[in-house]
Amino acid sequence: MTRTLLLALLAGVVAPAAVSAQPPADCRPSALNIPGAPYPCVLPDNRVMFRVAAPEAQKVRIRVGKGFDMTKEADGLWHATTTPLPLGFHYYTVQVDGAIVADPATRSFFGGGWWNGAIEIPDPDGAYFAPQDVPHGEVRQRWYHSSITQTWRRAYVYTPPGYDHDAKTKYPVLYLLHGWGENEQGWHVQGQVDLIMDNLIAAGKARPMIIVMDNLNAVKPGESAALYFARGVLTQAVPEPPPTPGAPPAVRRGPLGSTVFTDMMLTDLIPMVEKTYRVAPGRENRAMAGLSMGGFQTFTTALAHLDRFAYIGGFSGSTGGRGDFDLKTAHDGVFADAAAFNKKVKVLFLGIGSEEGPGTKAFSEKLTQAGIHNVFFESAGTAHEWLTWRRSFREFAPLLFR
Amino acid sequence: MTRTLLLALLAGVVAPAAVSAQPPADCRPSALNIPGAPYPCVLPDNRVMFRVAAPEAQKVRIRVGKGFDMTKEADGLWHATTTPLPLGFHYYTVQVDGAIVADPATRSFFGGGWWNGAIEIPDPDGAYFAPQDVPHGEVRQRWYHSSITQTWRRAYVYTPPGYDHDAKTKYPVLYLLHGWGENEQGWHVQGQVDLIMDNLIAAGKARPMIIVMDNLNAVKPGESAALYFARGVLTQAVPEPPPTPGAPPAVRRGPLGSTVFTDMMLTDLIPMVEKTYRVAPGRENRAMAGLSMGGFQTFTTALAHLDRFAYIGGFSGSTGGRGDFDLKTAHDGVFADAAAFNKKVKVLFLGIGSEEGPGTKAFSEKLTQAGIHNVFFESAGTAHEWLTWRRSFREFAPLLFR
Repeated sequence: MTRTLLLALLAGVVAPAAVSAQPPADCRPSALNIPGAPYPCVLPDNRVMFRVAAPEAQKVRIRVGKGFDMTKEADGLWHATTTPLPLGFHYYTVQVDGAIVADPATRSFFGGGWWNGAIEIPDPDGAYFAPQDVPHGEVRQRWYHSSITQTWRRAYVYTPPGYDHDAKTKYPVLYLLHGWGENEQGWHVQGQVDLIMDNLIAAGKARPMIIVMDNLNAVKPGESAALYFARGVLTQAVPEPPPTPGAPPAVRRGPLGSTVFTDMMLTDLIPMVEKTYRVAPGRENRAMAGLSMGGFQTFTTALAHLDRFAYIGGFSGSTGGRGDFDLKTAHDGVFADAAAFNKKVKVLFLGIGSEEGPGTKAFSEKLTQAGIHNVFFESAGTAHEWLTWRRSFREFAPLLFR
Repeated sequence: MTRTLLLALLAGVVAPAAVSAQPPADCRPSALNIPGAPYPCVLPDNRVMFRVAAPEAQKVRIRVGKGFDMTKEADGLWHATTTPLPLGFHYYTVQVDGAIVADPATRSFFGGGWWNGAIEIPDPDGAYFAPQDVPHGEVRQRWYHSSITQTWRRAYVYTPPGYDHDAKTKYPVLYLLHGWGENEQGWHVQGQVDLIMDNLIAAGKARPMIIVMDNLNAVKPGESAALYFARGVLTQAVPEPPPTPGAPPAVRRGPLGSTVFTDMMLTDLIPMVEKTYRVAPGRENRAMAGLSMGGFQTFTTALAHLDRFAYIGGFSGSTGGRGDFDLKTAHDGVFADAAAFNKKVKVLFLGIGSEEGPGTKAFSEKLTQAGIHNVFFESAGTAHEWLTWRRSFREFAPLLFR
């Protein structure tokens, strides 16, 4: 866009560009497209039509779950139509002569370690994550300084409807974590968790609560975050060296969770939240949950500090889903005494997509056989993706702080 | 990223990828890069080194202000080094065999009508827009329903430090608009306006205030937003038809401003803000400003409603910068009586980058000659870009509500 053309547009002397090649009338633009972009669009059977401009390219591909070669049509643009896709939010990439990039036709989201395109296959049951005519809470950007990481960090804080208009009420708090390669914006941007909560609260299905969404990336000064952000490096397509057997990981990690994050959360984040917001005190007003890597982190943090948390949730990420998990010894034996565990942990929630494999269900059954109360939820037809996590959250939130 | 690799990363069995081709030690990664990305990087003389992976491409170019051909080096990647770039935030594009895309190495920002990459050339004077050890306000995402557009809209609202801890104080409000092809996130994401305000307030240079950032795109049901978002269509590279002489514009617009936006703002946005936040009443507690198209919109809205606004700012976008502007008749003659205008308008602020041409300065001088008080600010060495607008805001905010 030249400045001349911009000024011409501002002055109204250039008529808006007509789109000469519209998709079929029954192909509806994805809700995640930039305004005005007709492609990608979703056909009634959930096949998706993509279109990409790459005038001089030799080979263009779309990867959305699996890869689809595009073909150059008479309009000079590259086209592909997929097989039917699952419902929900899917990241996808465009490959132009080997360059892996985001489709400029969609909004970009931080996922997979970079700013990626995405498509939304409409869920007929999706009203629960859409804006409805109900009171709305806020999502607040909150800067704070961490003494552990020695950096300014940014969290997002959901406050429920009415928070500002009753200066006395104190609220329970859920600490909610994103997954690998995502960030503190994942839950409200991709997950639409604020809208889910607004709708649950309006329906009387969940208690009003504060939700704190922070970034899993927490390293001490001088440490590298390369493991967490490996995809970021990979997008630069530097040839990946073979794994070095026995090489130390770049980030100090507990069993699938960062001990630095736990320290940061307990030392800096929770005190900041409790000083800044009207928070009800005590462990029975404090929950922790996360998806994928954020679920692993939740179990690492919360099981080691049950004096601080009474509610635990893992969505497509928990602990013990690998088969070799020893209930007697894992996590310092916290599961060894079922009665004691059940007394402390009010809700232990395990969510998973039906297409993600049997590990989480087997873990839930193993817990149940050992007498440990837990709630298992399986999202039908979804994989390791945001619709699994939106649905898991919808099931989990109503159980909290009862 | 395959699920297998993801799980391997989570399990810590894959060592983080080493970057084999680091940039020169004096080339510092742009602050806007995704974490871990070494390129693009900025050399001491503000030349920028870019690197792009496009293994099978024939031609790769970077466009940042002007175009730079990239060359494929021995590492199999495409490289380019620019001439020295101006300070500040610049959107840029990568062209891979004709496909115009965002560089996957950087964060993406909504600018130019799509989610684009950007680079930040460090400003030695940039502490004013960086997080400092001062009290921080919040930026709040606020959903509301518009009766004019019949849609749910999203605004962002800056509340100053301490807003939550003193339930009595009421604050003046600045309505602050983004430019063409940007959205309601532009001012706090690209502009870092919340950090600028935090720092100004902490230094005692600006009064604590609420800042409301909304989206210029406001159309009535059934109307097209195609003009506002024309670049969005262009990214699909549909050949642009020649302008049709006399064709009606897609969006009803006043002189460089949308009357629908004005209606929406007065009917829906301002009442929502004044109901939701602790807002000091009256026109002398209400300001409006914007950049580029948002500046034009500010003049269209505010000059027609001086009963509502006492402070007006335009940054690289005002009214009257074209030479044929008639002070006696324009905007229903609001400038015709200088004394009356000066009594009503406490501050009329015109900001511009020194590289943007002489129109705004000439307009300021014309106003001054006619006896109309105004403040002119020129940002040295900057063009139609965010550093001009950050600096303009830093000059404008201290003048408000005195």
